[in-house]
Amino acid sequence: MSEHVRQNAPFRWEGIEVKPYKAEGTHFSGITRQVLFTGGDGLGCELRYFEVAAGGWSSLERHQHAHAVMIVRGRARVLVGDRLLEARTHDLVRVPPLTWHQFQTWGDEPLGFLCVVDCDRDVPERPDAEALAALRRHPEVAAFIRT
Amino acid sequence: MSEHVRQNAPFRWEGIEVKPYKAEGTHFSGITRQVLFTGGDGLGCELRYFEVAAGGWSSLERHQHAHAVMIVRGRARVLVGDRLLEARTHDLVRVPPLTWHQFQTWGDEPLGFLCVVDCDRDVPERPDAEALAALRRHPEVAAFIRT
Repeated sequence: MSEHVRQNAPFRWEGIEVKPYKAEGTHFSGITRQVLFTGGDGLGCELRYFEVAAGGWSSLERHQHAHAVMIVRGRARVLVGDRLLEARTHDLVRVPPLTWHQFQTWGDEPLGFLCVVDCDRDVPERPDAEALAALRRHPEVAAFIRT
Repeated sequence: MSEHVRQNAPFRWEGIEVKPYKAEGTHFSGITRQVLFTGGDGLGCELRYFEVAAGGWSSLERHQHAHAVMIVRGRARVLVGDRLLEARTHDLVRVPPLTWHQFQTWGDEPLGFLCVVDCDRDVPERPDAEALAALRRHPEVAAFIRT
């Protein structure tokens, strides 16, 4: 990338493509991905910006790598493990290894968040029937999750 | 850290200390550091927030590791190599390896920026007389840098 990349519309950057969140699937909704910094050349991690339209959600998943997240637009309801968090603009959310997580919008605004991950990371795993049953033992979590 | 850290005042977070930028020195001015995410436990990098009071500046330095920066408060004038950039809120700045760089405020507002770095990184180097002379061959750079 160039040394300087300008924001040219709110949460859009010159030359940075607004990509599908994942290649395909029905286990997420209304979410896009922009890779703000790729790794390599002295950097072992990536900074991504995800945006979720009102009513949308990210995939319910877990993996060995951690997520370091800062909300930068709107508000989020977030599942981390069996905890439901309500996070506002500039709040920080850390998703530890092998912890089920899902981001959803909270309120009528789009939700935008930055997420730092290592370049070298494992592939996300989605919950099987047993894992879903375990999550659904918590009534609040059962009412929250989208699969 | 906890899974959820709230912003409890603009660009201040509960339980996250506002630290000196560096231990000591006169080669920087009016700048603080907050470590938003430390590495470890599935994350090989750190996310830091730096804030520069109006008229302040970061150290003029270079190192092998890269910086991935997003301006999140105010505006910056930034030296990257022999280029001077003018960056606004949400603009991105990448500092490649072994590239001299310095951040200064631009205008009367404080400047706040996020910076992602690898946990495992080398110590910054400051310019010696020869490096300074080379930088000062560019009149615009000579007028900009603070040492």
